[in-house]
Amino acid sequence: MHEPSNMKRKDFMKKSSLLTLAAGTLTLAPSGGMASRAIQMNEINVFGPREGYTPHIGTLVSMMDWMRMIILYPVQGMDVKDLDYLIDDGANTIGAMLWHLASTERFYQLHTFEGMKWGEWPKAEEEAWGTAMTLGDEGRAKIKGHDLDFYLEKLKTVRANTLEEFKKRDDDWLFAVDEDWFWGPTNNYCKWFHVCEHESNHNGVFKFLRSRVPSAKNK
Amino acid sequence: MHEPSNMKRKDFMKKSSLLTLAAGTLTLAPSGGMASRAIQMNEINVFGPREGYTPHIGTLVSMMDWMRMIILYPVQGMDVKDLDYLIDDGANTIGAMLWHLASTERFYQLHTFEGMKWGEWPKAEEEAWGTAMTLGDEGRAKIKGHDLDFYLEKLKTVRANTLEEFKKRDDDWLFAVDEDWFWGPTNNYCKWFHVCEHESNHNGVFKFLRSRVPSAKNK
Repeated sequence: MHEPSNMKRKDFMKKSSLLTLAAGTLTLAPSGGMASRAIQMNEINVFGPREGYTPHIGTLVSMMDWMRMIILYPVQGMDVKDLDYLIDDGANTIGAMLWHLASTERFYQLHTFEGMKWGEWPKAEEEAWGTAMTLGDEGRAKIKGHDLDFYLEKLKTVRANTLEEFKKRDDDWLFAVDEDWFWGPTNNYCKWFHVCEHESNHNGVFKFLRSRVPSAKNK
Repeated sequence: MHEPSNMKRKDFMKKSSLLTLAAGTLTLAPSGGMASRAIQMNEINVFGPREGYTPHIGTLVSMMDWMRMIILYPVQGMDVKDLDYLIDDGANTIGAMLWHLASTERFYQLHTFEGMKWGEWPKAEEEAWGTAMTLGDEGRAKIKGHDLDFYLEKLKTVRANTLEEFKKRDDDWLFAVDEDWFWGPTNNYCKWFHVCEHESNHNGVFKFLRSRVPSAKNK
């Protein structure tokens, strides 16, 4: 999506599988039931504080909800061949990149919520998320044969945990600075914004590949 | 950048051309001189309110400054052949995409700052920014032969205007909802977040192409 006309609300409303996932994350925000959930769905493009979160964390949540909706748009309906498509020997598949997004979010959880030093993960976490985090030769060799739901489930499960943990924290935590981070002094807001924009980064490649995957070529 | 180790602060500090541009945008924020500018440079990864802006606009500015720094990292040092490289007949060049980012921001300025209806641009604006906004066949035919500075200057000039206009506005403006927008009710925060994440979207393609442009193949 880079021009408004490319993403019309009505088009989105037709894409039930997408909205199911988006709703899946949205309903994790406190709500009194379907009514307030409907309001939230209607306000996906209205960024700002969200109920159940401190103001700046809620605003970040509004960005992350919206970004997730956007990045799932180009991959909807893709089959295993599309998700496993490699445009050349140095590329990554869309499937591997979807898992990679979940891995990134999971490792940022372990780092920012549980205080783990980057890269020093428990063995089970490394086994679950490491290959998709690294991508490259290992990713190309090991990540294949899965349908879209396999990847969406990972994204959804990890995101649910992010939202739960965000509820336990406040804006002071969001603005807290890590003086020892790789990039220099960096606060949690910057780290989590990166998790969010990183989805857009890969979405750029999803959109590039969308017109080049097997099912697109057969049309 | 998708893993912290890919973007070390010290590496950035060596890239003077990049920092010049980043500083170019940062110095547009009100500052008492070099000292406070130095503080701002040191806080590029510390998101939050910025002097001269209302709290949420300032936080958005911190995101946009950081995002701009990030997306210029993969294109630095590219020559005209790299910037004009087309990986296939349906692709866009990196040069055209850089101009496209400036066009997008310019049209969002006209829309959100000057109240113009999307797509109904003055002739001079359409001539200056329309081709890069549309990309496609026209972009492939017309946008070529320019060096990196040509594109960076456009990005820098447009961004300077964004920051000046942001200073004149407040958080009420940022949260104001456009009920008639293409996507459904949408506030200015969402629109400007899109301008920001849209840079990341194309950065994903920049990074994909970076290892495939002519100068990379000759290495």
